[in-house]
Amino acid sequence: MTPDYTVADYLLDRLAQIGIRHLFGVPGDYNLHFLDHVIDHPQIRWVGCANELNAAYAADGYARCQPAAALLTTFGVGELSAVNGIAGSYAEYLPVIHLVGAPTLRAQRAGDMVHHTLGDGDFGHFVRMAQEVTAAQASLTVENAKTEIDRLLGVALTERRPVYLLLPGDVAQAPLTPPLSPLVLPAADSSPEALAGFIAAARELLQPARHVTLVADFLAERFGVRQALAQWMNEVPLPHATLLMGKSVLDETRAGFIGIYSGAASDPQVRQRVEEADATILVGVRLTDTITAGFSHQLNAERCIDIQPSVARVGRQAFSPLTMSDAVQALHQLTSVLCGQWPRLTVSRPELPASDGGELDQHAFWRQLQAFLQPGDVIIADQGTACFGAAALSLPQDCLFINQPLWGAIGYTLPAAFGVQTALPDRRVLLLIGDGAAQLTIQELGSLLRDDLKPVILLLNNAGYTVERAIHGPQQRYNDIAAWDWCALPQAFGSAAATVRRVSTPQQLQSALQTVSDSRQLALIEVLLPPMDVPELLDSISRAIQLRNDAA
Amino acid sequence: MTPDYTVADYLLDRLAQIGIRHLFGVPGDYNLHFLDHVIDHPQIRWVGCANELNAAYAADGYARCQPAAALLTTFGVGELSAVNGIAGSYAEYLPVIHLVGAPTLRAQRAGDMVHHTLGDGDFGHFVRMAQEVTAAQASLTVENAKTEIDRLLGVALTERRPVYLLLPGDVAQAPLTPPLSPLVLPAADSSPEALAGFIAAARELLQPARHVTLVADFLAERFGVRQALAQWMNEVPLPHATLLMGKSVLDETRAGFIGIYSGAASDPQVRQRVEEADATILVGVRLTDTITAGFSHQLNAERCIDIQPSVARVGRQAFSPLTMSDAVQALHQLTSVLCGQWPRLTVSRPELPASDGGELDQHAFWRQLQAFLQPGDVIIADQGTACFGAAALSLPQDCLFINQPLWGAIGYTLPAAFGVQTALPDRRVLLLIGDGAAQLTIQELGSLLRDDLKPVILLLNNAGYTVERAIHGPQQRYNDIAAWDWCALPQAFGSAAATVRRVSTPQQLQSALQTVSDSRQLALIEVLLPPMDVPELLDSISRAIQLRNDAA
Repeated sequence: MTPDYTVADYLLDRLAQIGIRHLFGVPGDYNLHFLDHVIDHPQIRWVGCANELNAAYAADGYARCQPAAALLTTFGVGELSAVNGIAGSYAEYLPVIHLVGAPTLRAQRAGDMVHHTLGDGDFGHFVRMAQEVTAAQASLTVENAKTEIDRLLGVALTERRPVYLLLPGDVAQAPLTPPLSPLVLPAADSSPEALAGFIAAARELLQPARHVTLVADFLAERFGVRQALAQWMNEVPLPHATLLMGKSVLDETRAGFIGIYSGAASDPQVRQRVEEADATILVGVRLTDTITAGFSHQLNAERCIDIQPSVARVGRQAFSPLTMSDAVQALHQLTSVLCGQWPRLTVSRPELPASDGGELDQHAFWRQLQAFLQPGDVIIADQGTACFGAAALSLPQDCLFINQPLWGAIGYTLPAAFGVQTALPDRRVLLLIGDGAAQLTIQELGSLLRDDLKPVILLLNNAGYTVERAIHGPQQRYNDIAAWDWCALPQAFGSAAATVRRVSTPQQLQSALQTVSDSRQLALIEVLLPPMDVPELLDSISRAIQLRNDAA
Repeated sequence: MTPDYTVADYLLDRLAQIGIRHLFGVPGDYNLHFLDHVIDHPQIRWVGCANELNAAYAADGYARCQPAAALLTTFGVGELSAVNGIAGSYAEYLPVIHLVGAPTLRAQRAGDMVHHTLGDGDFGHFVRMAQEVTAAQASLTVENAKTEIDRLLGVALTERRPVYLLLPGDVAQAPLTPPLSPLVLPAADSSPEALAGFIAAARELLQPARHVTLVADFLAERFGVRQALAQWMNEVPLPHATLLMGKSVLDETRAGFIGIYSGAASDPQVRQRVEEADATILVGVRLTDTITAGFSHQLNAERCIDIQPSVARVGRQAFSPLTMSDAVQALHQLTSVLCGQWPRLTVSRPELPASDGGELDQHAFWRQLQAFLQPGDVIIADQGTACFGAAALSLPQDCLFINQPLWGAIGYTLPAAFGVQTALPDRRVLLLIGDGAAQLTIQELGSLLRDDLKPVILLLNNAGYTVERAIHGPQQRYNDIAAWDWCALPQAFGSAAATVRRVSTPQQLQSALQTVSDSRQLALIEVLLPPMDVPELLDSISRAIQLRNDAA
């Protein structure tokens, strides 16, 4: 006899309280009872995926546009298939709640040789693996369920990172009382001394400055200061840039936006304004290799104000605990006063490279895509020619740009687009993905079609791993892949109700984009591009990476 | 300037020495230089896969019919995508050499924030994860390369388990001298005392026995006693069975073969002969839940001789170190002498359930498949209706049966079939896989077609996860999947040169199998089966598992 209210219900209610409306995953016999409660839950919808890695990617995409995401897998086989996606969420700061349905506590305590284990009676292998790529872990029992569920959700939301919850089948079904009050998150507070010290040091650096530039990156988005930055940039005429990882955290249509900063691979004006400013304000920036053209950035730490999630630095001085939000607000006020002394801002934005209009090459493709963009679009670009080409796009207002340059798992974006479109069914989602990458995760196209979602998929077909060719082995056969008939896939994956085009000339691309604009179907445009043609930014970055990989 | 002979070459030469002829994997920028050496190697061929999990499954399949297998991934993203496959190889004792291309030692020592890391400067996360699912790990340097490569290959071959080799890009390219002598494996020896004690104890148990039964399982195959068992069963009239996990380790056409032992789910005669014998000899047996119908076996330990890889037990007495081979040989000799006293062996084999010939259901399907089997076939059955149905087949001579009942990762078999067919291009490979399972790993169909391999794929389409439905939630929508047009997939994945049929009646199936017999193409037969129809064995086993999962 099923109790009225169970651990499973408590967990689901807590997920709903933090804004989660969908649970991604794959069923397995250790989580089927829990799934009964999911199906019955009034606010949370089950979203079955074709495999667990894809489900983890979908959850990661969902967490990029919702307060958090949840993923359900089974023990062993399921969780380990998903772990690469979880590691990506950890590297790039996404709160994904990973629920793992496990054998009963009785079977675990007896060390039973049950399926989905290594057969050695040790049920701790996988939680130990999860320790490396999640911010907190819990093995739920009836006794610790309330405390541990609340603790883990708190960690996920405040640290913006995945957590791991092992849920034995018997624990999920055990009775529990409902939560008495909403989830209380651990407070992230600044100390008044840290804040005062930060303001004083920042004033000292900024007071004599005449040229001040702001650079924002992905952690500004993750730690919730996007709106505060928008207001700041609206009121204070500071030139500002993002790194590629944080593209779209600033409104690219505003006059002060100067472009993408990529170290030595930047447009010369952007580079000069960032590196030669009297003071450079960094908000939520991580200088990783792929977005700095191999650490080619030249930032003088003495002239930088570096705002991180719980610490801010002015030159060599560090101030903590200091929230990103408090630091941003303080600088907003400070610069409002000081900016009267600063020269008038004139910005000319880097242009997309010209296209001669003959061949359908990278230049022609990105210019047409630029014209196709609309305010509010979500652009998801895979870590290859797609992402580095999209870097140069000027985004209309309210666009969201999603990429994964630190973790850099190719194939990530197709399931991520499924997650994003599930969260935002009414937004136009544009997925930019290469053929090499799409092969890794293609089956999630079936889930998009099953759920009647309608992204526009631009499949950049350059017959293999061109991002690798740019780095090494341009003619080597290991950079070739199996040749697929991409346009036949939507029908094979379940639906003739898709707009499908293969284009190899600029005219065909234009006509296809026009068709897509008018249709209300999932669209797949296969864009045939020359195998050795790469966007300028990728060219610079891949040469830098090649140099570093070659160095003995 | 590239040196004449490098760490990469040494590693590849050692792999070739232990019989590896193919390297499965996915390229990434941290392994591209190593791949140049692979391409140039005279004995090892690069086999690019669509993703890393599939590559790991392919390597696992390869290792089931070759001395060992090798897998190449890139750091972080690649290795973690593969780790579920590696864990399966660990659980089920397959020597897969996992090579991971890593950032240069210089970058690692500097703690650089490079791509495919968690961005925290700690390059040890993933090797620590590998410790949980591999038998040995090494981070190669130029100084330790020879010792560590030789050590790890030795561990893989003697323990029959995966090992993890981290290969930084600069180390791979560093000069090294070629091996001076062939790889020397650590000796696995028996102690004379253990052997003598074992023989004496076994004689004491067997001397008064009249009914003696032998049960062999997968570890007999892994630890190399298949031939010794065949000779033994040929010369001594012992009734013998296998467990499902070890199906095909004994010749099922020999008179003494009595069937598959599955605890309470066994055919009554098989159960009686195994459980009520005066002595039961177990060779390489692991009694896991899915192959014993939830630990329903009733074996009296006092009457058992249990031969494991390095220990053998007679009743409660353990003898070690004692190799499986020595123990088998000793019992062979002993039973040759004793068997004169044993009653003449008469065996009637369990029959496949009858089919009324009307509907195409599980009964009709398996009977037709039985007739289709040929000597030498390799049958690969996924962990669902496929595997539990195939358990009842009588295998012709020299067949190899591959399944994965302990780790039980659905979707495993499609890429595993790719690995097996790569190893054995001239054998007929029959892949039995459900629609739910095939969705997880379908893209490897493209690799099969690219390499012009010709397995026969029987896609058992019962519109979802019927193996889960049998356990719980038969009508729940979480056991449904996206509806694909399976027959359209071969063309979409690259080749019209495939035989494709959808069958929904016994007559259509018969005609399709006939066509396949005559053709020399990859074949995909989509077999439409009732969603709630399950083989008898699965029914028993799933009821046992349900009971255990439900138990609080």
